[in-house]
Amino acid sequence: MGVDDDNAATGVRGYRETTALDLRSGAVTPTGGVQHTAQIDPGAVPPPPGTPELPRTVESHLDEILGAVPQPDPIELAVLDAQGLLCAEEVVSKRALPAHDQAALDGYAVRADDVTPATLEAPIRLSVVGETAAGAAGPSSIGPGLAQKVAAGALLPGGSDAVVPAVWTDRGVVTVTVHAGVAPGNYVRRTGDDVAAGTPAVAVGTPIGPAQISLLAAVGRERVLVRPRPRVGILSGGGELVDIASDPAPGQAVDVNSYALAAAARDAGADAYRSGILPADPRRLSEVLESQTLRSDLILISGTFPDEGDMVREALSALGDVRFRPVTMHPGPVQAFGRIGRDPVPVIVVPGEPVAALVAFEVFVRPAIRLMLGKRQLFRRTVQAICAQPVYSPLGYRQYLHGQVMRHPDGGYVVEPLGDGDEAMLARMARANCLIVVDEDVTEVAAGGLVTVMPLLLGG
Amino acid sequence: MGVDDDNAATGVRGYRETTALDLRSGAVTPTGGVQHTAQIDPGAVPPPPGTPELPRTVESHLDEILGAVPQPDPIELAVLDAQGLLCAEEVVSKRALPAHDQAALDGYAVRADDVTPATLEAPIRLSVVGETAAGAAGPSSIGPGLAQKVAAGALLPGGSDAVVPAVWTDRGVVTVTVHAGVAPGNYVRRTGDDVAAGTPAVAVGTPIGPAQISLLAAVGRERVLVRPRPRVGILSGGGELVDIASDPAPGQAVDVNSYALAAAARDAGADAYRSGILPADPRRLSEVLESQTLRSDLILISGTFPDEGDMVREALSALGDVRFRPVTMHPGPVQAFGRIGRDPVPVIVVPGEPVAALVAFEVFVRPAIRLMLGKRQLFRRTVQAICAQPVYSPLGYRQYLHGQVMRHPDGGYVVEPLGDGDEAMLARMARANCLIVVDEDVTEVAAGGLVTVMPLLLGG
Repeated sequence: MGVDDDNAATGVRGYRETTALDLRSGAVTPTGGVQHTAQIDPGAVPPPPGTPELPRTVESHLDEILGAVPQPDPIELAVLDAQGLLCAEEVVSKRALPAHDQAALDGYAVRADDVTPATLEAPIRLSVVGETAAGAAGPSSIGPGLAQKVAAGALLPGGSDAVVPAVWTDRGVVTVTVHAGVAPGNYVRRTGDDVAAGTPAVAVGTPIGPAQISLLAAVGRERVLVRPRPRVGILSGGGELVDIASDPAPGQAVDVNSYALAAAARDAGADAYRSGILPADPRRLSEVLESQTLRSDLILISGTFPDEGDMVREALSALGDVRFRPVTMHPGPVQAFGRIGRDPVPVIVVPGEPVAALVAFEVFVRPAIRLMLGKRQLFRRTVQAICAQPVYSPLGYRQYLHGQVMRHPDGGYVVEPLGDGDEAMLARMARANCLIVVDEDVTEVAAGGLVTVMPLLLGG
Repeated sequence: MGVDDDNAATGVRGYRETTALDLRSGAVTPTGGVQHTAQIDPGAVPPPPGTPELPRTVESHLDEILGAVPQPDPIELAVLDAQGLLCAEEVVSKRALPAHDQAALDGYAVRADDVTPATLEAPIRLSVVGETAAGAAGPSSIGPGLAQKVAAGALLPGGSDAVVPAVWTDRGVVTVTVHAGVAPGNYVRRTGDDVAAGTPAVAVGTPIGPAQISLLAAVGRERVLVRPRPRVGILSGGGELVDIASDPAPGQAVDVNSYALAAAARDAGADAYRSGILPADPRRLSEVLESQTLRSDLILISGTFPDEGDMVREALSALGDVRFRPVTMHPGPVQAFGRIGRDPVPVIVVPGEPVAALVAFEVFVRPAIRLMLGKRQLFRRTVQAICAQPVYSPLGYRQYLHGQVMRHPDGGYVVEPLGDGDEAMLARMARANCLIVVDEDVTEVAAGGLVTVMPLLLGG
C-alpha cells in the first residue's frame, strides 16, 4: 500500500504534490517523470478499486478516537504504586500536621515573657528542667523562669510559647544563658500549620510524585484512589512477519512494531502487553483478538491490510465495527479505528511500516492513552523552529518528518530535517529528536522558513 | 537538630542571617528578638559540643559523592526491558536494511528504459506478468516490455530497475498503461539503504527509546547491552518513626521518607527497594544494613542522628566509614556519605525532616543515580526567573526554597516562592513545581530580582 491510496479521492493536486517528492533522492526532482504528472487529467485515471471509504483529515480521525476511548474507573493503589498517576479523590487529612505544637529548630522552649528583655549585654539566665528529643513521648511542662531543651520537631512542653534558638544561648545543661529575646510563637510550629485536620491535602487531578507521596504518607494514607494506567494490548499483523528471533527469508520482515509500539505505549503511561504477531489461522486469529477484549482497555494493531478479503479485516468485522480509512497524512496512508467485543473495546490500527507506525502512535495513540490517564495536556508541546533545509510536502496532506531540533545560539530553535519523507528509514528515525509537522495547506518551506516542531522527549 | 549545627563553624554572619528568617511568619522580622542577634559576639558563644567535622560546601559534598559512586557493569537485557536505559555497546547490524531491493510504494516494477518516453498523451503499455505482495517470497523476473505489479515493501523482481507509482497508470491487471516515465532507481529502496550489513546501527551511550527498539528489532537484536538501573536500598531511621499504617502517638511521626525517597529514586531511574524503618535493636540494625550491602548499588538512609552515641552512626561505623558533616545549605543541616560492607557500597544519609530529605535527594542523590545510569546530563536544567516576592537567605549558605514557576506573558519566567524556608511544610512542597536556588553569597533578592530556578519535572 502506498501513496496512491491517499490520493485516490483528493484530486490531482493532492497526489501530484505527493509524488513530486522523490522518495529516494531526498529532494524534489524538477526533471524526469515527475514533471509529466502535472499534465495528467484526473478524469483519465480510473478510480482505484477497493477504496470504499473517503479519506478524512488527521483531525477528524483523532476526534473520533478521543471521543470514543473510555476512561477506566479509578482504582485504589498503594501510594508507591500511584506514582506518576493522577489522584482521583480529594484526600482529606485525618490528622493535623504537625499533630502537636513543636519546636521549629534546636533550642530551648521558654515562656517568651521571661526572655523578652534579653540582650548580649544583659542576658537572662533560666533553669533547664529537662530535654525533649524529637519523638519523645512525655511532654513536660515549664513554669516561669524555667526552660526545656528541645530538638527540632520535639513536642513543645506545656507552659512554653516560644523557642530560643540554641545559637542565641550558651547551650547550658543545668542553666541556660539567653542572649536575645523572642516573641510568643517564635520558632514554634503550631498544630495544623502544615495541614489542618479535616482539610484537603491532595486534590482530584493532582499528579502523584515524590512530594505528594510524602504528604499522603504523612496524613496517614497507605492507599490512594487514582486514574489507573490503561492496559493496552499490542499486536502486529502481516503475512510477511517473522519473530525477532528468526532470520527473515527473502520477502519476510521482522516484527519490529509490537516491540516499538509496546515501548511507546509504556512511555506514554500505559501498561503495555505485547502479544506479538497475529496468527495466520483464522480461528486462532479471532480467538487472540477476542481474548484481548477481555483484558485490554485499548487494542493496538499494526499492519498494512489489503482493502478486500484480508483475514484481519474480516476477523475485526466479525467481532465488531472497525473502519479502515485513508487519512490525509504522510506517512500514511491508511488508519483504522473501531470497537470489538461484547463489552466493546476500542481498537486502533496503525500502518505496518515501522516508521509510519510510530508516527501514527504519536498522532493518534499517545493522546488517547493520555486521555485515558486523565491528563489534561494530551498533546506534546510544539515549538516554532527555523528549518535548516527546504522541506516539500504534499498539498492536502499533513506531513510528519523526523528531524533534529536544537537551540539556536541567538535564541529560538533550528531544526534539521532527516531525509525526505521516505518513511521506511529506521536508522534515520532513531537519530531524530523531533517530528516536523507541515500543515495540509503548505507545500514548501524554504531553508530559513519557520516550521512547527514537536520534540519527542521520552516520558515527556 | 536545627540551624545551629550549620552555623557552628562558619562565623557569626552565617548564623545571624540564617536566624534572621522568621521560620513561622513567612517573612523576615525586622523587629523583635532577631535584631539583637546582630550584636552577638561570636567569641561569646561557646563552640557547640559534638561537632567534630567542619562544615563543607554543597559542591564539595557532591564532588565526594560523584567521585565515589560506582558505575554498575553493563548487562544484557531483552530489548523491551532496555527502554529508557543507555546502550553500552556498539550494535553492528548483522543484516542489511532493507535486506533486498524493494518497491518504495505501490505500483509496477519496470525496466526504466521501457517507459522513459511515456507521457499522458503518448502512454506506454506493458504486459503485467504477475503481482508481488509485501512479504511474498518468490521473486520473479521481468524482461523487456513487461511489468510486475508490486506492493510497497515487495521484493523487486529481477530485471526491473524502477517502480512506476500506481497513480501514474491505469492500474491494469493484464496490461498496464503508463502515463509518465521513471528514471532507473526511482521509487526503489535499495538493499542497505537504511542500514548496511556490518555497519553500526546504535552507538554506545544512545538512550534506548521506541525508535531505537524498532531499529534493534529490525537488525535482529533480541537483547542489548545497557547500563542497568542502579539498585537503591532505601531505609529511614529515627526513634520517633512509626509505620504508615500506625496512628502516631504524641511525639511520634510517620515514616514518610522511605516512601517519598523510593518514589524519587524511581523517578530518577533507579530500581528502588523500600526497606522501611531501621530496627531499634542494634544487632538487627547491623544485619539489615549488612544485607543491604549485598543487594544494593547504593544505600540511601534518611534520619536525623544525634552527633554522639547514636545507634545508627555506630552501626555504620562498625560496617565501614560514613562521615556526617554539616553542609552549608538550607534546609540542612547535616548530610553524610561513606561506604560500608566487604565490597564497599556507597551510603548517602539525608536529613530526617521530610522536606529537607527530598531537597537533599535532588541535590546529592539524583545526580549520583544519573551518573550510575551513565547519563551525560547529571543535573536538572535551571532557568533564570523573576522573583515575585522578596527572598532572604543566610549568608554562606546555599538556600533551596520551593516555588511555583510559570512562563511570563512577555517571555521568560516568573517564580512565586512558597513560604519562607521553613523546611517542614509538606503541603507547600506538594504545591511546588520548582526549587529556587539562592547562592551562598546572596542574602536578599528583592521582588522583581532574578533568581535561579530548577524546575522539578517528573521524569525529567
